[in-house]
Amino acid sequence: MRPLLLWMARNRLLKRWLPRIWFVRRAVRRFMPGETVEEALDAAEFFRPHGIGILFTQLGENLADLSEAEAVADHYHGLLEMIAARGMDAEISVKPTQLGLDLDRDAAERLLSSLADHAAQRNGLVWLDMEGSAYTDATLDLYRSLKEKHPNFGICLQAYLRRTPADVHALLPLKPAIRMVKGAYDEPSSIAFRRKDEVDGAYQSLCVLMLPHAGSGDLRLGMGTHDTKLIERVAAHAEAVGVAKNVFEIQMLYGIRQKEQLRLALEGYRVLALVAYGEAWYAWYMRRLAERPANVLFALRQMFG
Amino acid sequence: MRPLLLWMARNRLLKRWLPRIWFVRRAVRRFMPGETVEEALDAAEFFRPHGIGILFTQLGENLADLSEAEAVADHYHGLLEMIAARGMDAEISVKPTQLGLDLDRDAAERLLSSLADHAAQRNGLVWLDMEGSAYTDATLDLYRSLKEKHPNFGICLQAYLRRTPADVHALLPLKPAIRMVKGAYDEPSSIAFRRKDEVDGAYQSLCVLMLPHAGSGDLRLGMGTHDTKLIERVAAHAEAVGVAKNVFEIQMLYGIRQKEQLRLALEGYRVLALVAYGEAWYAWYMRRLAERPANVLFALRQMFG
Repeated sequence: MRPLLLWMARNRLLKRWLPRIWFVRRAVRRFMPGETVEEALDAAEFFRPHGIGILFTQLGENLADLSEAEAVADHYHGLLEMIAARGMDAEISVKPTQLGLDLDRDAAERLLSSLADHAAQRNGLVWLDMEGSAYTDATLDLYRSLKEKHPNFGICLQAYLRRTPADVHALLPLKPAIRMVKGAYDEPSSIAFRRKDEVDGAYQSLCVLMLPHAGSGDLRLGMGTHDTKLIERVAAHAEAVGVAKNVFEIQMLYGIRQKEQLRLALEGYRVLALVAYGEAWYAWYMRRLAERPANVLFALRQMFG
Repeated sequence: MRPLLLWMARNRLLKRWLPRIWFVRRAVRRFMPGETVEEALDAAEFFRPHGIGILFTQLGENLADLSEAEAVADHYHGLLEMIAARGMDAEISVKPTQLGLDLDRDAAERLLSSLADHAAQRNGLVWLDMEGSAYTDATLDLYRSLKEKHPNFGICLQAYLRRTPADVHALLPLKPAIRMVKGAYDEPSSIAFRRKDEVDGAYQSLCVLMLPHAGSGDLRLGMGTHDTKLIERVAAHAEAVGVAKNVFEIQMLYGIRQKEQLRLALEGYRVLALVAYGEAWYAWYMRRLAERPANVLFALRQMFG
């Protein structure tokens, strides 16, 4: 199932036509409140009374030229203003290629710097999302230079990559913010674990390893996963070694395991909901389906139920 | 299968009669070279040219009185002399209850201290084995007092116990020697993980967590497992974070995955073979079978093949 969905995520013809089918669009509502920023902001209001913070991300396609990157940056500047106007507990997460990483690295760095300056007015972070393995080195390199000048940058790392322990080890001295995810791209086994037990073991080990750094305040640690069993294991470890449960945060997608999000927030965990929006949701949505077989069943039920 | 074997390990009638059956005795040869110390020493010579060290342990039953504990200590003193006479790279591992822990704690501490003094003449450690959860606190407490006076004590911890992260956390400041095993007793789920993926996740996390301490020389870390997949994952993590592969050691039982033991030693890992011997092998043997379904098949083949 997973290889099929990841193939579908990359297929140009499907990418062009599937989003036009009305019942596909209906199913997407499961994970995405809408295509516009206003719909995203309105949906995010649901979480406010529960003390759940928000991470907004605008979904995007590959860029044709740098003016598109500037438009993306302008969009996020507008979003930061809307977040401030609503007094919302929210941050933004951006894909480096959307800011032009593979067109003009320095321009991307400049655009990201200005977003960080803007977000810093309300003590917010700008999270760099992590894409396929072709961009790992470039994204880490970009993160390092940004972090030198702006403390308010976070980065996403993927536990399924065999390199990630080394990347964590190298980043820890920078007092980073790290969102750890399992990883959702179709990577070869030479560079990534492909078996669930291996990915889970890597994920748990990395989080357990980072807990003391989070506990001492030298790391902001986000667990970007819907695997509540894994979260519980890391939480149990934290409790055993005397690390308070609110030193790490749990980041889950809008619409996935929402009851769990509410339960965890009630229990005193810091929870963030990742709200994605925008027109270019197709490939992103297919990767979300590939992550969890349960998501596919749910999507089918949304379509035909 | 596992509950059945663990029940068999505790059953008094089976414990009395099964060891008298000749084909059962033959199968036990799989994991135990013999009942006498001479057979154990001779079997251990096989590992010498491969650079594989030895951990000897005499299997024992519950003690009736303290004179039996003194006899066990005398036995180990004799063994330490034989190890020295042969110039063998070997240490001993003892069950605290065999030295009288639950009869007279202070006497057990005295007997263990004298063994540590003896082992220290050749820079050897004395390893405390870990038994069922009824003895965990007492064994850890004993280890702490012994370690204050004798740096050459090691202890075994069981990853399946939910308390183990806290125990590791508390022990690390003592610069301990820790043999991490998965755990082989029939413990309730309130205190121990029972699902394989949970035990494996805990095991991997604990080892990964301890690697930097082993790397800085503040911990001697032994991985007491035959799960080569887990070993490889921890080894890959070590490599990724720049910890040399010989800062931890791999401890496997005599006769189990022997080819792997040789291969790992050839690849530059520090490998120890745990050689058990003695008349009271029944319950120990049943726990070894319960650890791995493959062991049962092998045992049946040894009996009837």
